[in-house]
Amino acid sequence: MKERIEELLEAKKIGEISRLFAENEPADIAEVLGEFGDEYLSRLYRILPKDLAAEVFVEMDTDEQEMLIKAFTDKELREVMDELFLDDAVDIIEEMPASVVKRILANTKADDRKVINELLKYPKDSAGSIMTTEYIALKAGMTVKEAIERIRAVALDKETVYTCYVTDRSRKLIGVTTVKDMLIAGDDTLISAIMEEAVVSAYTGDDKEDVADMMSRYDFLALPIVDAEGRLVGIVTVDDAMDVIEEAASEDMEIMAAITPTETDTPYLKTAVLSLFRSRIPWQLILMISATFTGMIIAGFEDKLAACAVLTAFIPMLMNTGGNTGSQAAVTVIRAISLKEVEFRDTFRVIWKEIRVAVLCSIALAVVNFFKVILVDGMLLSNPAVTPEVAAVISITLVVTVLCSQLVGCTLPILADKLGLDPAVMSSPFITTIVDAVSLLIYFAVASAILGI
Amino acid sequence: MKERIEELLEAKKIGEISRLFAENEPADIAEVLGEFGDEYLSRLYRILPKDLAAEVFVEMDTDEQEMLIKAFTDKELREVMDELFLDDAVDIIEEMPASVVKRILANTKADDRKVINELLKYPKDSAGSIMTTEYIALKAGMTVKEAIERIRAVALDKETVYTCYVTDRSRKLIGVTTVKDMLIAGDDTLISAIMEEAVVSAYTGDDKEDVADMMSRYDFLALPIVDAEGRLVGIVTVDDAMDVIEEAASEDMEIMAAITPTETDTPYLKTAVLSLFRSRIPWQLILMISATFTGMIIAGFEDKLAACAVLTAFIPMLMNTGGNTGSQAAVTVIRAISLKEVEFRDTFRVIWKEIRVAVLCSIALAVVNFFKVILVDGMLLSNPAVTPEVAAVISITLVVTVLCSQLVGCTLPILADKLGLDPAVMSSPFITTIVDAVSLLIYFAVASAILGI
Repeated sequence: MKERIEELLEAKKIGEISRLFAENEPADIAEVLGEFGDEYLSRLYRILPKDLAAEVFVEMDTDEQEMLIKAFTDKELREVMDELFLDDAVDIIEEMPASVVKRILANTKADDRKVINELLKYPKDSAGSIMTTEYIALKAGMTVKEAIERIRAVALDKETVYTCYVTDRSRKLIGVTTVKDMLIAGDDTLISAIMEEAVVSAYTGDDKEDVADMMSRYDFLALPIVDAEGRLVGIVTVDDAMDVIEEAASEDMEIMAAITPTETDTPYLKTAVLSLFRSRIPWQLILMISATFTGMIIAGFEDKLAACAVLTAFIPMLMNTGGNTGSQAAVTVIRAISLKEVEFRDTFRVIWKEIRVAVLCSIALAVVNFFKVILVDGMLLSNPAVTPEVAAVISITLVVTVLCSQLVGCTLPILADKLGLDPAVMSSPFITTIVDAVSLLIYFAVASAILGI
Repeated sequence: MKERIEELLEAKKIGEISRLFAENEPADIAEVLGEFGDEYLSRLYRILPKDLAAEVFVEMDTDEQEMLIKAFTDKELREVMDELFLDDAVDIIEEMPASVVKRILANTKADDRKVINELLKYPKDSAGSIMTTEYIALKAGMTVKEAIERIRAVALDKETVYTCYVTDRSRKLIGVTTVKDMLIAGDDTLISAIMEEAVVSAYTGDDKEDVADMMSRYDFLALPIVDAEGRLVGIVTVDDAMDVIEEAASEDMEIMAAITPTETDTPYLKTAVLSLFRSRIPWQLILMISATFTGMIIAGFEDKLAACAVLTAFIPMLMNTGGNTGSQAAVTVIRAISLKEVEFRDTFRVIWKEIRVAVLCSIALAVVNFFKVILVDGMLLSNPAVTPEVAAVISITLVVTVLCSQLVGCTLPILADKLGLDPAVMSSPFITTIVDAVSLLIYFAVASAILGI
């Protein structure tokens, strides 16, 4: 699309550009506009058909939004703010510097400004922070015909019209119904007759990830959010839930790689070097310093290593295998916890399962290792120091190490979860550090026993 | 809910149980039923109100579904099959043993059976395999009133009614419209006047993850799926897209932990020990054997280690720090690729960014390490072998290792993606193996140069 727009700009065919935009999805247009430099960005944005402009604006990266807002006249800014859904407006405002926020709010209608200020108060990871206040509320005494009239009248300003909520006089949520049920029921049916009274809802303070998981579990298109008194204050729509789920998955992967998750949704190529540095260095330092223990263990057994120098060559393999098997177990359990398949009370069932898996894995690894060490390291690389006894020491260490590391790997995430931490912190780098020390201690103990050093 | 059901079963209050079920979501009921043993499962299932039974059935685990099907009379099985959406039926059939599949198909209406057999032919990861054929198709010449009549008539059997597709005589997809737009437009408007002609669609053979990403990107509730001739054959609904996204995230984490992803969606506690073993052992073996290289490097430099034994103690720290920084870079880039923020043509921009991050990280690590080694390992643990020269060797090695490993970590995922592999395979365990060898070579080279050994 970019090349085509450049051609049309060159030829000054503005009408064609507008038509091209109309044929494309807002997310795609936003991406292409982002590839143009600052001077073209606002020129192209102004070509967008009015109804599309706000939708494209929402999909842009923060820095482009800021650029555009600065380029907007007050009138243009007012137009955009009028078109935006309030939850999108809040998302944008949260990312802007204070001076821009001031100008945005000054150009927002008083009613909207009040709601935006309310929404801005909800904590960052709460259901309240991702909900929209533009839902459709019906009364139990309405007929389907009246309800549909009402939907028709207000639909243009609502993010979703298909799930409608029934509230009483005090705005308490008392039921839910859908346009589908209304269509099936027919014009004269009372809403009270078709509404579902057992409404699943969440509180404004609930964790947004829990809300998203609920929506995924129940296949909801929207979930009503109530305040402490049970009054309906907003809804979370499925598109926002999907974003939360994707964001949570990204965050889990970052945590598992010992990266402090970043709050902003800036794309990688636009993220500042310093902010990447800041998100990576804390765990790098912690893990580096905690390796002091492995160093101390090796230093303590220096005489044993001197007596049988060939043992040193297998330290990396033993530590890595321990780390790998430990993190495999950890990731499996971390996923099971996040899918709510495993809870604290399942600890012993998890341990029992992992022990059996570990026995199988460790025996397979030990057998393969024994022959590999004798055949490759001993004969092929003709190292006379590699005796069957040495191979046996390594294989026995493998068995014990794999057993220990899978045990560590499967229990730590459950413990972390019980302590209210994100189980994902108990993944690869953290487990490796523990398993390294454990595997070295096992190695030297086994070597002493068998080789008599 | 479980205790309550047990009490009511005890008291033989079947009506109460039925009412309790009616108040809960199908997913929750399925979970609770799963906690009852086989004998109670089918007894409780038969208490479910008819309209809820099929919904609960869909949410159950495969083994419980199989148990129930075996307990069903042919009449009961027919009733369930009549109620199921065809895409759900296909999902269930795919997990069942052949004998059960035969019985299911024998108790399915001829029309449905034909569609199910068609759907079963689509490859496992294709859009065709997750689509439903129960969509609403309209004609361009209909009025809104006629369209709504039609929706009303068929709504009961359709998974979603809110997005409707407009097809021509040859079933080619020519437009899309929504119930919202119809309600806003009013009864006499022609569908052709309100339909959007630029329809985003996917092919039956497209990857289901791409389809799910598209739906998330464009905030669609449904995406039409067409065959090679552009004829509409089905739709993918947002609830299925959400499942695909969650599954893909799970799979990525498994791959990143060197676990061969499992196909079945069996919950962890029900997964057989042997199947966990099979998904973990291949990479364990590969990684263990590839550690032969690090072993060879250490064996090759045995004399240097003998000359300065204290160097051995820092091998684990150097290898781990290299591995950690490398996997941090890898995970960042893997996420950026999967969010489509980074492509092959961005390789040099990625490398340039990572080099700058690596310079900052490596200098910070090296400085902290230098003082830590002298103060902790040298003075606190009073090891006279830890001289400032040794500390310098370790710090310089850190700088070069971190630079190399971030470079390896950021480029391998891009290369893997370019080669059509899942970038997630280039994560922690794989990168560790490469970085281990690299860091050892650097270590011994720096040690030779500075310590003259």
